[in-house]
Amino acid sequence: MDRTAPAQEIARTAEQCRNWGRWGDDDVLGTLNFIDDAKRLEAARLVRTGEIHSLAQAFDTNGPQKGWRRRTNPVHTMTDTGADAENGTQGFPNGMGGADDVIAMPLQCSTQWDGLGHIFDRGKAWNGRRAGVTVTSDGDLVTGIQTAAANLVSRGVLLDLGRVLQGEIGADYPELPDGFAITEAHLEAAIDRQGESARVGRGDILLIRTGQYARTRRDGWGDYAGGPAPGLSFTTAPWLHRTEVAAVATDTWGFEVRPNEFDDAFQPLHQVVIPNMGLFIGEMWNLESLAEACAAERRYDFLLSAPPLPITGAVGSPINPVALR
Amino acid sequence: MDRTAPAQEIARTAEQCRNWGRWGDDDVLGTLNFIDDAKRLEAARLVRTGEIHSLAQAFDTNGPQKGWRRRTNPVHTMTDTGADAENGTQGFPNGMGGADDVIAMPLQCSTQWDGLGHIFDRGKAWNGRRAGVTVTSDGDLVTGIQTAAANLVSRGVLLDLGRVLQGEIGADYPELPDGFAITEAHLEAAIDRQGESARVGRGDILLIRTGQYARTRRDGWGDYAGGPAPGLSFTTAPWLHRTEVAAVATDTWGFEVRPNEFDDAFQPLHQVVIPNMGLFIGEMWNLESLAEACAAERRYDFLLSAPPLPITGAVGSPINPVALR
Amino acid sequence: MDRTAPAQEIARTAEQCRNWGRWGDDDVLGTLNFIDDAKRLEAARLVRTGEIHSLAQAFDTNGPQKGWRRRTNPVHTMTDTGADAENGTQGFPNGMGGADDVIAMPLQCSTQWDGLGHIFDRGKAWNGRRAGVTVTSDGDLVTGIQTAAANLVSRGVLLDLGRVLQGEIGADYPELPDGFAITEAHLEAAIDRQGESARVGRGDILLIRTGQYARTRRDGWGDYAGGPAPGLSFTTAPWLHRTEVAAVATDTWGFEVRPNEFDDAFQPLHQVVIPNMGLFIGEMWNLESLAEACAAERRYDFLLSAPPLPITGAVGSPINPVALR
Amino acid sequence: MDRTAPAQEIARTAEQCRNWGRWGDDDVLGTLNFIDDAKRLEAARLVRTGEIHSLAQAFDTNGPQKGWRRRTNPVHTMTDTGADAENGTQGFPNGMGGADDVIAMPLQCSTQWDGLGHIFDRGKAWNGRRAGVTVTSDGDLVTGIQTAAANLVSRGVLLDLGRVLQGEIGADYPELPDGFAITEAHLEAAIDRQGESARVGRGDILLIRTGQYARTRRDGWGDYAGGPAPGLSFTTAPWLHRTEVAAVATDTWGFEVRPNEFDDAFQPLHQVVIPNMGLFIGEMWNLESLAEACAAERRYDFLLSAPPLPITGAVGSPINPVALR
Repeated sequence: MDRTAPAQEIARTAEQCRNWGRWGDDDVLGTLNFIDDAKRLEAARLVRTGEIHSLAQAFDTNGPQKGWRRRTNPVHTMTDTGADAENGTQGFPNGMGGADDVIAMPLQCSTQWDGLGHIFDRGKAWNGRRAGVTVTSDGDLVTGIQTAAANLVSRGVLLDLGRVLQGEIGADYPELPDGFAITEAHLEAAIDRQGESARVGRGDILLIRTGQYARTRRDGWGDYAGGPAPGLSFTTAPWLHRTEVAAVATDTWGFEVRPNEFDDAFQPLHQVVIPNMGLFIGEMWNLESLAEACAAERRYDFLLSAPPLPITGAVGSPINPVALR
Repeated sequence: MDRTAPAQEIARTAEQCRNWGRWGDDDVLGTLNFIDDAKRLEAARLVRTGEIHSLAQAFDTNGPQKGWRRRTNPVHTMTDTGADAENGTQGFPNGMGGADDVIAMPLQCSTQWDGLGHIFDRGKAWNGRRAGVTVTSDGDLVTGIQTAAANLVSRGVLLDLGRVLQGEIGADYPELPDGFAITEAHLEAAIDRQGESARVGRGDILLIRTGQYARTRRDGWGDYAGGPAPGLSFTTAPWLHRTEVAAVATDTWGFEVRPNEFDDAFQPLHQVVIPNMGLFIGEMWNLESLAEACAAERRYDFLLSAPPLPITGAVGSPINPVALR
Repeated sequence: MDRTAPAQEIARTAEQCRNWGRWGDDDVLGTLNFIDDAKRLEAARLVRTGEIHSLAQAFDTNGPQKGWRRRTNPVHTMTDTGADAENGTQGFPNGMGGADDVIAMPLQCSTQWDGLGHIFDRGKAWNGRRAGVTVTSDGDLVTGIQTAAANLVSRGVLLDLGRVLQGEIGADYPELPDGFAITEAHLEAAIDRQGESARVGRGDILLIRTGQYARTRRDGWGDYAGGPAPGLSFTTAPWLHRTEVAAVATDTWGFEVRPNEFDDAFQPLHQVVIPNMGLFIGEMWNLESLAEACAAERRYDFLLSAPPLPITGAVGSPINPVALR
Repeated sequence: MDRTAPAQEIARTAEQCRNWGRWGDDDVLGTLNFIDDAKRLEAARLVRTGEIHSLAQAFDTNGPQKGWRRRTNPVHTMTDTGADAENGTQGFPNGMGGADDVIAMPLQCSTQWDGLGHIFDRGKAWNGRRAGVTVTSDGDLVTGIQTAAANLVSRGVLLDLGRVLQGEIGADYPELPDGFAITEAHLEAAIDRQGESARVGRGDILLIRTGQYARTRRDGWGDYAGGPAPGLSFTTAPWLHRTEVAAVATDTWGFEVRPNEFDDAFQPLHQVVIPNMGLFIGEMWNLESLAEACAAERRYDFLLSAPPLPITGAVGSPINPVALR
């Protein structure tokens, strides 16, 4: 990989990993096409104890966002409260009282999916569509996240890179340092060491734990939103393509390693995998309790249910993914 | 039931169905305590084909809300679009382009859960807490919906009252008319006729289809938000208590029959079951495709995954529930 | 005017009234350039009694908006209340208590100015700039409303067409009927009948009262937002150009007559006067109390102060214009 | 002043400065009652050159707010853009194109007025009303800012403490240091030194420039929102009461000196002057260009027009105040 030639590397890798037309001209699902009934049935059969883990970070004003691209933390306000109910100012009879609330938030403020309309490559959206007429101010007119409302439940697999690599990088915690680029070799090593339940294949939703989120819980958010972070190397694109995973999520803000590996680029792996491969990416997931449970039992696959909110035309969605083991 | 004495009937029924203290003084989960690992394992084992149904209505400006209590439809706006990406005005290198978005919405605008802080009875919130210090302008400080982030996955059971009663009420469609009060007898009849897979018990999440949502898809929203509707009779409270269901959701705006059955009351069944029983209520669910699949196969139970977004302090949450069969 | 040939008529009128380059290539103010210190001094000297009129409609959920182009009524919510203060849940010492609030609103939801970036003509914004790079998802990068923060105070003149024409149209109220197109002849007649204080010239801010807002106060909003309305005829563009007014505001939703006068057009007068002439347009003003005062005294000019909120990059602004007489 | 006894000092000063009942039991205007037609006429006559100054700070995401009490910076988003217009995806005929926008913001995010419902003293709002039933989740039901829509235009007077005291405090810039408490003696000295046009009396709107805002323009926002700042001493309350000013605004976040002068208090001067005196307070004003003009000409009074947006029930309002000289 030539770090001085991002445009060329991106173009080459995009071509290599491109799935345009693979599921027809009208496709809106990309790699979610890899998930079918059989896959979901396989996933449901992984449940052995009924134990559940929520994989969401909190949605509140104490979040990591600092306003970049107008991404703020969510603002939740009450339109009615218990205090009003006590005071009898709500106008309901018989001692009835109520509380109601509203929220204003970027769809990328906390745990989320990137939709296929979230990233473009040289003016093209997923399946080769023109970006400018696909995602307008009215939203994503073609691949809006609501089209994937029933498609993000599958077998989940956790690759806990933070734990797997802790020894060889000599870390105090099971966490990768900021700037650490996870390569194909690291991914394959993780699968090997974690064993059979960690094999990754068609239709799986792959969860990659770096440990960075655990670090923020200890040290504060710092530059979690956009700053240096461990993450996938740009060079993993072909592996992601070859394994035919349906989606990949990480416990970091930006999925790929930061700073990015080119001298001048911005999230180049996004640029390849979303518009070209049609891959769904999840970010800012909380994989902590799940990772502990997996490690304790050395069992790394589970039923993952992470359907997006069907917000018409959205290019992303806040979610509360749950893993059932 | 004396329809002229709502305060008395509410007080009596509340006392009869009250679960305060049942799970300790600090409890924040109410009837969700009925769901345990064994229950979730039972639920996962119901999956036979891997077929999935999203039970959410759309989240967009074409929704049913008309502004009552400042409940508007969601407003989704883009902070970056494909058109900007094409124009090269986004400042990214190498042909990278992106789209981003934000949403402003009442948490009760579309398919949702009512949290335990949503309704009060004579100044008391769930478990007997003082409403005014439990749910303030800072949100629900005790029973915020984030406390239930990992608790709304269980066995789901659909009771399709619209279909079951179509014959005896002589309806053109499998839909109950507005104002139709579903009683305990109707519920038991539905269980009987639907058969073994429709039995309702401890920890189940009960889905009640009235058919009203199907009607709005045919005729327009009309007064779906707050107007006349089929729904549960106030008199079903003891049955809901006795069956020990964990949660109940309907395809209507307001769960209970409207107009309410008292001369002067507002959502009296809410007033009993949320603060007194600790029951989670879901509203505005889209049960159509699930109901068709269940009817076709005469199999009415499934794995239901409907975790709320963990919005800190929220008294409700938008959701995309999915049923796996 | 050929009502079957809107494109041709618009192109011809746009060319006739175009002010591109008149104030230099970098101009961001358009006709506001007509207002100078002398004009403001003249305006201040019109004040004789110190009487004041607020010309704003209310900003609340009971407004006219119905969601077209996601234009909702404003949603105002409290983040702290007096009820919380009483309960002592706010954490302040010494009996201190506070209330705070937030608002979410379209900038065009109630009384407002259209900024110069609000309308484009065949891909061109004010002064001939390319629309696509002038107003992006980041807002109006050139003519954002903040550039006019100190430019919307001048001599105001009220032309009360509703009153002036009441007799000859035989109306029960001093109000023009919906669909009534105000022509140059009507405007000149109004000036004649109202007298010297109603003369209109360079740098004035012209307020045109149709009476439609008064009708909504009597009859309800109805289709105030976008429906039939009295308003300026497309044919008044040259007059608006010739008089060199700095801005024009009406008591209607849309400034120009609706339905528009062409078989197929949408707000064609906007299309001419905003991007071509550089004219600021105000809409949804409440001219009622001012009109009564003017009529009573037969004095129609005043100091008008209507500065926009300097929202960076906005293409419009909510305002509370005040007239000082 | 005993800095260890805030509750006692607050109670004593509140009693001393209390205006409850002064304008009747139903009053909603407080000290704005001091402004009458004669006062506005006097103000208009101060205009000599027609020169205008906007006194607003910007409204955008690059503002000072950091999320305290959910006070974020404004989030402005486009619902239609010029890029869409160019692409012809808006659905308008004849080459018509449009841009539209929305904003979500705390009403206290930038240049603003505090309404009378913004602060309470021991459970009481302005005029002795009960806080809990005056300002509920539905907003300020009595003294909502819309009641002052036509009342905030008057004679403005600038006291430029930053300039007046620069010499004696030996400052490099005409700016008071953070933590500097402006006393009655300072105010009187400023009036003396600035001369006749700086006299302060009944119905005036007093603008106090500390210079802190100028410092943030040079050094960055830092802790402008809530951190250390120059401002009025708690001890100025009787002076504010005695002079019968209608309103007071500063170029700081919080009007009064910070840290506050008591060991344990939060904005104690607010607690006295808003609910007890009925005084309108303005914060985060940009007085820079006005101050330079006043200093150059040694003329410190002007016509000030600063009407709030009439947001029904609001306890504050964003504004763009303008001074006409």
